[in-house]
Amino acid sequence: MSASDPPDPGRVRAWLQDLQGRICAGLEAVDGQARFVPDREDRGEAGLSDPRVLEDGPVIERAAVNFTHSRGAGLPEAATQRHPQLAGLPFEAVSLSLIVHPRNPYAPTTHANFRCFVAGAPGEPAAWWVGGGFDLTPYYGFDEDTVAWHRAARAACTPSGPGVHADLKARCDAYFHLDHRNEQRGVGGIFFDDWTEGGWTASLGLLQRVGEAFWPAYRPILVARSAMPYGESQRRWQLIRRGRYVEFNLIQDRGTRYGLQSGRRIEAVLGSMPPAVAWAYQHQPTPGSPEAELLSRYLVPRDWLADGV
Amino acid sequence: MSASDPPDPGRVRAWLQDLQGRICAGLEAVDGQARFVPDREDRGEAGLSDPRVLEDGPVIERAAVNFTHSRGAGLPEAATQRHPQLAGLPFEAVSLSLIVHPRNPYAPTTHANFRCFVAGAPGEPAAWWVGGGFDLTPYYGFDEDTVAWHRAARAACTPSGPGVHADLKARCDAYFHLDHRNEQRGVGGIFFDDWTEGGWTASLGLLQRVGEAFWPAYRPILVARSAMPYGESQRRWQLIRRGRYVEFNLIQDRGTRYGLQSGRRIEAVLGSMPPAVAWAYQHQPTPGSPEAELLSRYLVPRDWLADGV
Repeated sequence: MSASDPPDPGRVRAWLQDLQGRICAGLEAVDGQARFVPDREDRGEAGLSDPRVLEDGPVIERAAVNFTHSRGAGLPEAATQRHPQLAGLPFEAVSLSLIVHPRNPYAPTTHANFRCFVAGAPGEPAAWWVGGGFDLTPYYGFDEDTVAWHRAARAACTPSGPGVHADLKARCDAYFHLDHRNEQRGVGGIFFDDWTEGGWTASLGLLQRVGEAFWPAYRPILVARSAMPYGESQRRWQLIRRGRYVEFNLIQDRGTRYGLQSGRRIEAVLGSMPPAVAWAYQHQPTPGSPEAELLSRYLVPRDWLADGV
Repeated sequence: MSASDPPDPGRVRAWLQDLQGRICAGLEAVDGQARFVPDREDRGEAGLSDPRVLEDGPVIERAAVNFTHSRGAGLPEAATQRHPQLAGLPFEAVSLSLIVHPRNPYAPTTHANFRCFVAGAPGEPAAWWVGGGFDLTPYYGFDEDTVAWHRAARAACTPSGPGVHADLKARCDAYFHLDHRNEQRGVGGIFFDDWTEGGWTASLGLLQRVGEAFWPAYRPILVARSAMPYGESQRRWQLIRRGRYVEFNLIQDRGTRYGLQSGRRIEAVLGSMPPAVAWAYQHQPTPGSPEAELLSRYLVPRDWLADGV
């Protein structure tokens, strides 16, 4: 740990709370009707839980944009499976986690998370890291959306070094892989965890660029695709594909599983669940259809920027 | 192991295949329209996978009645977490597993499973056990259905001894508890695992009485409740409650999680998923409503036969 570049979770908290407000305002503006409902729980020195959920809008069927700040005198063992040496230390964790389920099947679901963690004494921490990323889960694939999404991700990463984007894209593809179906959850994006590269200031720089890149990347896709006409057949496909999202979140997602095990604020943890979902037995899209193309072209790891775009 | 009372998985297979046929015929007769679609995979000496799924009937929205027979020269470690000493032994497992999701919200979902397991040499097995049970998940509670259900369960258990039903009911309540919601999945029934009480013949007797009791117990409830008129409000509640079923199956259920980890026949493993599901954020039924009564009166462990009925 460098004493000259100490982590500053308070600064991350202030930034993420501001970002939460801006993203919620942006989503409300795009929806034009539904409003976020807060369920704030201020725990004083122990932190703040501030989940915000918007439901049943004309554009957005459900969005959850949750800020959490946790501070404690002794890190529970369950929270440190990957870092058992930190159990019992004082800690501070700050996180903004969000998910958007648009109504229109042509508009992709998105998920993003931005967080930092510090353990040990404030002046001389035993460990810290930042993590986060954003990823896109379309029900119908569009090359131009996917390329624009990955370009935004790359632009956020590039100042951190030449190999960083490729690294974070590969981590995203690896993490959002639905093991029992052997398919990607979506077209990916970027994902990082336990990040300390270059020290605190450089790592925070990456986190903030990624955090600030999310909404400008998602907004135009949401707006454009939500204007497309669709019918029952597209809706049905969306509901079936949302089932994959549920499978991933309940079976694999570390954040969801940790939240469920913690037993706290279950409604906030599961505020990310799609509002309506279907499971069809042995459903296979018609060969050559847009639904089949989603599986064959989009839900596989692919270098969308390979052509230098 | 008693050499004079050896386990006979072949006999269980023949009985369960016959029972599968009778339950499927019964469900088709009640539905009156939809038919089970088989997806049989005969693996010869390695066993037989025979899932049957019925979908989109006027009475039954989805039912999955799956027979599986597995035989192998060496039990994989993943299959023996609770019995590591059996890894590598030859084994034979026979199972009938079923789930019924009726369309009418007044008709309860049900789940049942009947199985046996033998490890070691056929003549002198290292271990064997039987297991199974049935449980009921109503969306609206009815005392008379619940009492009749538990009476049928008790009648199947009583010949095995005076304390057996209370034991198996308690195991069912313990198993079908949704931990992160701290609520029961339904009104329970009976559940047993690793059962060897009294030797093979006595244990098989219990398994067969439980297996034969299921359909005569469920059929009258399904028929009566499916005739009740309902509206959008009841349907909505059913979809939300089905979300709890999904949460249980994907997060906790041992059979589902083992099936997913095995990576084989995922569609058969997930054939038990409800066809249509909803998640509502912070949904609370109106106090005093039938929906609130489901939670307060039915989804708690309760001795439904306490009055000597």
